[in-house]
Amino acid sequence: MSKSVPGYTGRILRVDLSHQTISIETPDPDFYRTYWGGRNIAAYYLLKELAPGVDPLSPENILVFATSMLTGSPVPGSSRYSVAAKSPLTGLYGESEAGGWWGPELRWAGFDAIIVKGKAEKPTYLWIHDGEVEFKDATGLWGKEPAVVQDSIRKKLGDERIRVLQIGIAGENLVKYAGICNELKHYSGRTGLGAVMGSKNLKAIAVRGTGKITYHNEQVLKDKAKWFAENFMKHPGLNPHHELGTAKGVNPINAMGLLPTCNFREGAIEGAYNLSGENIRDTKLVGRKSCYACPVRCKRVVADDAPFKVDPAYGGPEYETIGALGSNCGVTDLNAVLKGNELCNKYGLDTISTGVTIAFAMECFEKGLLTLEDTGGIELRFGNGPAMVEMINKIAHREGLGDLLAEGCLAAARKIGGGSEAFAMQVKGMEFPSHEPRGKWGVALGYAVSPTGADHLQAAHDTWFEVEADPYGRFELMNIREMEPYGITKPIPAQSLGEEKVRLFRYLQPLWSIYNILNMCIFVGTPEWRMFTVEDLLDCVSAATGWRTSLLELTNVGERGIQLARCFNIREGMKPEADCLPERMFEPLEGGALKGVAIDRDEFEAGKKLYYEMMDWDLITGAPSRARLAELGISWAFEMMKEDQDG
Amino acid sequence: MSKSVPGYTGRILRVDLSHQTISIETPDPDFYRTYWGGRNIAAYYLLKELAPGVDPLSPENILVFATSMLTGSPVPGSSRYSVAAKSPLTGLYGESEAGGWWGPELRWAGFDAIIVKGKAEKPTYLWIHDGEVEFKDATGLWGKEPAVVQDSIRKKLGDERIRVLQIGIAGENLVKYAGICNELKHYSGRTGLGAVMGSKNLKAIAVRGTGKITYHNEQVLKDKAKWFAENFMKHPGLNPHHELGTAKGVNPINAMGLLPTCNFREGAIEGAYNLSGENIRDTKLVGRKSCYACPVRCKRVVADDAPFKVDPAYGGPEYETIGALGSNCGVTDLNAVLKGNELCNKYGLDTISTGVTIAFAMECFEKGLLTLEDTGGIELRFGNGPAMVEMINKIAHREGLGDLLAEGCLAAARKIGGGSEAFAMQVKGMEFPSHEPRGKWGVALGYAVSPTGADHLQAAHDTWFEVEADPYGRFELMNIREMEPYGITKPIPAQSLGEEKVRLFRYLQPLWSIYNILNMCIFVGTPEWRMFTVEDLLDCVSAATGWRTSLLELTNVGERGIQLARCFNIREGMKPEADCLPERMFEPLEGGALKGVAIDRDEFEAGKKLYYEMMDWDLITGAPSRARLAELGISWAFEMMKEDQDG
Repeated sequence: MSKSVPGYTGRILRVDLSHQTISIETPDPDFYRTYWGGRNIAAYYLLKELAPGVDPLSPENILVFATSMLTGSPVPGSSRYSVAAKSPLTGLYGESEAGGWWGPELRWAGFDAIIVKGKAEKPTYLWIHDGEVEFKDATGLWGKEPAVVQDSIRKKLGDERIRVLQIGIAGENLVKYAGICNELKHYSGRTGLGAVMGSKNLKAIAVRGTGKITYHNEQVLKDKAKWFAENFMKHPGLNPHHELGTAKGVNPINAMGLLPTCNFREGAIEGAYNLSGENIRDTKLVGRKSCYACPVRCKRVVADDAPFKVDPAYGGPEYETIGALGSNCGVTDLNAVLKGNELCNKYGLDTISTGVTIAFAMECFEKGLLTLEDTGGIELRFGNGPAMVEMINKIAHREGLGDLLAEGCLAAARKIGGGSEAFAMQVKGMEFPSHEPRGKWGVALGYAVSPTGADHLQAAHDTWFEVEADPYGRFELMNIREMEPYGITKPIPAQSLGEEKVRLFRYLQPLWSIYNILNMCIFVGTPEWRMFTVEDLLDCVSAATGWRTSLLELTNVGERGIQLARCFNIREGMKPEADCLPERMFEPLEGGALKGVAIDRDEFEAGKKLYYEMMDWDLITGAPSRARLAELGISWAFEMMKEDQDG
Repeated sequence: MSKSVPGYTGRILRVDLSHQTISIETPDPDFYRTYWGGRNIAAYYLLKELAPGVDPLSPENILVFATSMLTGSPVPGSSRYSVAAKSPLTGLYGESEAGGWWGPELRWAGFDAIIVKGKAEKPTYLWIHDGEVEFKDATGLWGKEPAVVQDSIRKKLGDERIRVLQIGIAGENLVKYAGICNELKHYSGRTGLGAVMGSKNLKAIAVRGTGKITYHNEQVLKDKAKWFAENFMKHPGLNPHHELGTAKGVNPINAMGLLPTCNFREGAIEGAYNLSGENIRDTKLVGRKSCYACPVRCKRVVADDAPFKVDPAYGGPEYETIGALGSNCGVTDLNAVLKGNELCNKYGLDTISTGVTIAFAMECFEKGLLTLEDTGGIELRFGNGPAMVEMINKIAHREGLGDLLAEGCLAAARKIGGGSEAFAMQVKGMEFPSHEPRGKWGVALGYAVSPTGADHLQAAHDTWFEVEADPYGRFELMNIREMEPYGITKPIPAQSLGEEKVRLFRYLQPLWSIYNILNMCIFVGTPEWRMFTVEDLLDCVSAATGWRTSLLELTNVGERGIQLARCFNIREGMKPEADCLPERMFEPLEGGALKGVAIDRDEFEAGKKLYYEMMDWDLITGAPSRARLAELGISWAFEMMKEDQDG
């Protein structure tokens, strides 16, 4: 007798690498209505099907690729996909997103998600084309760099339009922060998912699709795209995004004192302009590339000749990369940073973890905890660009000190000892992105409680309501009304974690989560960078699916992802103590506009406690309550937390 | 430096009856953005300014009248206002709404709300006209019936368009469930607020306004009104509402076995048709009246001659009245019910509490706990219409047994003893409305946890997703997609209080709360009776105020009212044990389509516990958590709970 609301549904591909078998599932419409897409689909399967306590690099780990109902739609920003598995870097929930071209192609090929289990006997790649799936020998591709692999697969399969997702040698070598790329320069960098692919002998997933996605109302999506294309160059956030890429952030963030410098000791660096989007544009830019369906073309193409020759095939550095490999290593030598970026992309290394781990090592070297003998003769000092570049080579190949640094800065510190853990700028084992939390305490809370560790895409990090932190005036450009649909109408001081800030965070966090669920690019629509408002996002979801939805549902869907990942981590034995920050965050910044500023420890602890209570997380165990999960319609996740190691 | 969102604001009139002084306040826009209107404004002031532990009938009690930004707008259903005070019936938070004409007039006279404190030395009425306020002698009006009072005030002040809000002799006599009316037939019936007016010697508030309310976008409101007027007669819920009034419910509800009969022992009564909207229309209807701005005209005008002569000035009975005075007293004699309704309105008695208290007395009489001596010779048996009518006279005048019954059924039972408390169909001292909770367990939970006791406007009682309870097929007419914006897309069995039902309730309750906050009529827009969807409501709020709002904000605003009232009750010493139901609810219905059905006690208790957890209410103290209140932006209310009797 049950009548239900008309549904949207999709297809999920299951791949067993051990047995070289596949199967296809069509979950019922309730599944899609509850989880929507991306990280939520991934978290659902990891929580349901991954036994707790498994070695992340064992065949038992599960690797999920997932898109949303918007992936591949005409809407700008809809190019993305989620990848998730148990992280080898953190031992906890691992997830990372990328844009580019592979996600849309997967949908055109007939699938919304791929669940990969087991381990292939020998190097293998998957070939997915219009609903067909083949296991292919990748023995000859193992050890090859991405550009060669991509060319080789396209030639062999005879189609230049094949989109290739792959790992580099860092993934093959199980570097704990190896990433996964598509089209050579679009990276799922974080949480070491490239090592998971490597551990499964899965070199690549090649996809080609000629299918058409049916939408409830495609015209709405086309109209949004048209409006976006006609207007983004007038937008104060997106115009510079086209002009300068994410590197537009270097100059203002340096001026604000928020640019990580010399392993997060300082918040600004002399010579930052060398690394800026402006300088890159004026001296090294040879092209601008885009993701699928996006007119912004924020992706840089750069070339350089000397002292390091830089191959334009691997793109130019993002803001995060410039912070991590540049200022955070004390390096303002643009040539070295461009080279470092090229190498990381060529090897398949996360530039953030790589840079922050090298900066950690630099501080150890400076303090005498690492010697020239340890470094193989490299003067591993802040500001030494060529040393930074050389360490990237060593990490990717796991040579000498690189073998230790390939484990991440926390694991390295535990080996090095001598108090070096204080220099490891990480949360839960994952290295800090390039946003100084002492300047925006909402970011501090975001890093501390993120399920993946310090993660700029989990951290609600543009709590732009923190206008007081902005002597540069950047936020003046933003629309003060952006949080209004939440009933929040006043700016809140940046360096505070009082009740109002935690409340703001409590709503912004599910909004950030939604970008990883809808697999939409944050630059088209988060509060800070809005072209698309949250109402535009809802319009897109409705147009794609026919659903009648709301900000309330969107917020609950966003929170589902946060709570599912939390349940995963609790099941893995994580305790609330893991929701912490390095001691350095409670010590004064040593330079920049915010020199002298530290996070107030009491305020941080009180804010975190209040956040726990708002999320209904037990203060002792850290676990979400059954009631909160029931309120979200996912109480099954509560039962999952009880599973012991035997699964 | 703080930029804020542009605001909407209003004016609040403070009246001190003891000192015969007034003052006017203009709260800042944040206040309106947080509370919106109606019950929330009332609850705010009661929690902030009323000392805990005061006698509800003492001068220390505070009486608040409040409207919303929509009251008096062109939109149908916008005629209403909230009245609130500490209830003399429950000793807890008291609140009741009414439609009619007085609320809009108050706004045109320049005020959004009135806060009344103190007690006048002699009978007094307020005369409010275009921003002016006068205290007027009401000595000559004391003891007079409403029609006389209204005429007299209009004549004396020389304006036939004055709207008069007033109490009858029940309020003067401090009957614990005396109500407050405007235009003789629009009643704030529940929680005994008429007695609070009476205790303050405040007979009436006469209002006249010629001001114009400025809206952000009046055209939107006009367009909604136009669309409503053009379409409501095609609507399966509103067409019968016009045709039959709320009495349209009698036949289907009787058929469903949900019509309270003989003090809630049975769920259907032979001869129900006599009491039905159809029979009233065909035999006694002499006119249809409306509230301000509403084309539906659901208000009945009835006349009758014998045996009881019925004065059409006091309107016809609502469904609730027919259930309480009719079937629940075993009475199917329409003439007696029409007379009972006329008398209650003339005396200013709540028809629900009156009927249920008389039914209680009938059961006591039947069981021998009350004798002919007690009743003054009245054969107070189920089915005896004239006895029911006569008891109304006695209650209003506090004559004989009426004096005891004027205290409400719970207080009466405590006096009568002999196990009679089992026959008192009430929660927290307030009598049951005419919706049998055994048929819809969401209603059972709603009655149990309502801050005002058993209250059909606090109970989210049309959990219409409970389609299985509806053999009559009424719900087939409804739009299955109504809860979809909440992400709830499937019907849930009526006789269940499992996780899914509690989750549904958790969202429906704030939606019901919103109708008392926006002071909108539920019949224009709740899920069951939708013409206006929740999105239409949001459009209206935005059009009136200029706010950019959402279902998320609306839900939080709705929950604020629930949590503030909860804080009030906790401060008054209420314990979780008060969130209970009469034992009868756990015993099988003795008749009707649901004969044999009882509420499962374990499921009820488990559902209530889950609801507590979802609301973040402490299981031991019943108090909302500070974190939940902080999440709603009202953590000040937490501090208020700590205040002791000394305030």
